[in-house]
Amino acid sequence: MTRTEARTPASAAESAAEQTRVAVSTVIFTLRRLPDSETAGVVLPLVRRTRDPHAGLWALPGGWLDVTEGLDAAASRTLAETTGLAPSYLEQLYAFGDVDRSPTRVISIVYWALIRPDASTALGDRGDGSDENVQWFDAASLPRLAFDHNDIVDYALWRLRNKVGYSRIAHGLLADEFTLAELREVYEAILGRRLDPANFRRQVENSGTLIPTDRFRTGSHRPARLYRYNQDVELADRGPLDSRH
Amino acid sequence: MTRTEARTPASAAESAAEQTRVAVSTVIFTLRRLPDSETAGVVLPLVRRTRDPHAGLWALPGGWLDVTEGLDAAASRTLAETTGLAPSYLEQLYAFGDVDRSPTRVISIVYWALIRPDASTALGDRGDGSDENVQWFDAASLPRLAFDHNDIVDYALWRLRNKVGYSRIAHGLLADEFTLAELREVYEAILGRRLDPANFRRQVENSGTLIPTDRFRTGSHRPARLYRYNQDVELADRGPLDSRH
Repeated sequence: MTRTEARTPASAAESAAEQTRVAVSTVIFTLRRLPDSETAGVVLPLVRRTRDPHAGLWALPGGWLDVTEGLDAAASRTLAETTGLAPSYLEQLYAFGDVDRSPTRVISIVYWALIRPDASTALGDRGDGSDENVQWFDAASLPRLAFDHNDIVDYALWRLRNKVGYSRIAHGLLADEFTLAELREVYEAILGRRLDPANFRRQVENSGTLIPTDRFRTGSHRPARLYRYNQDVELADRGPLDSRH
Repeated sequence: MTRTEARTPASAAESAAEQTRVAVSTVIFTLRRLPDSETAGVVLPLVRRTRDPHAGLWALPGGWLDVTEGLDAAASRTLAETTGLAPSYLEQLYAFGDVDRSPTRVISIVYWALIRPDASTALGDRGDGSDENVQWFDAASLPRLAFDHNDIVDYALWRLRNKVGYSRIAHGLLADEFTLAELREVYEAILGRRLDPANFRRQVENSGTLIPTDRFRTGSHRPARLYRYNQDVELADRGPLDSRH
């Protein structure tokens, strides 16, 4: 069927549109100390496919969009079913719809989410334990994933790196109170490079977004002051979309 | 049918997914001298709906996604059919999918585009003349549009205003060579407020993105030097998505 034939009568065009199915998937990022490493890295949960296409390969958590379910709700549901947790940040990433990305025509509307590492520890145990078909992977060294999911993760990582530069998104990966070293570790994990501690401290203090507390983190190092973000400000400004939810 | 019933058997979930149809629409911005005004404003073409739902209301140009057509291709086709022109910039905006946005379930994947004003003059005549069902509207004072299209235009305007702050997107609304006053007029139209000419000149010159030419715009005012952008740089960095096309 050529495109012209498909589009000329309205009914044919509508039936063509109905051959297209909509899925919602979510890239869920958190930080975790990487094996055999001193540093934290960005990790995400993947689900092993149990049926074709791509049976046996790992894929982003997601599923068909229910006809009675909003897009944001579908993303939240997928996230809760996979991790048992509420995200600190959830945003629509992009709609992926290349004609050849699946054997049948599937439009995947992809969200990306952040989960605080303290929240993810418990589910990490669950994910790595009771269900061997859900596992956490280092985002920097993924295996070949199903469909175009490697491209999707690359784009989500790019969005995360970009956004960390002009928003307070890093807070979505931190507990309520954190030391400057912990904040720097989040930036280092996202950007994939070490930052000079003195420069970082100066930049953060000059930004004026942090509120020092009277509390200190004590342990093997010398006590480090705990800071918090101003909670009145959104993690990222999404303009008119924020008011719709 | 409850959500649980719809999702339990895989075949029922897939049939639910098939009741959802995908449309692609495009918000096409250009600048035009507004009637009864000294200043230029952001305008966009709208199409009058000839059938229900919302027959008679104005709507964004678009249509059902053809099962054999990529998302970007569908947006480009819509844009060409509406305006007869190629855009200077085209980017996916957002997927709108609220359950109640249409009497049947429709996911609209919306793109936004920029057209240079010199290119749009001809089609403006065509749009306002030969086809009374396509007209250009001042983005700042739209009538009630079909579906959630007012919300969509608001979000596209927000993206445009935001992007003008951290990218060279303004160039997509200028000819190859332009005066600083013309560049300032683009910023003023997008931001919806006047900018101090001396401050603007200083900021632009400090940014280092403009290349002065040896040519001048002459006319009723004193001659003004023409500038151009460095064409080697993309209008906006879209990361891994740029390399996919």
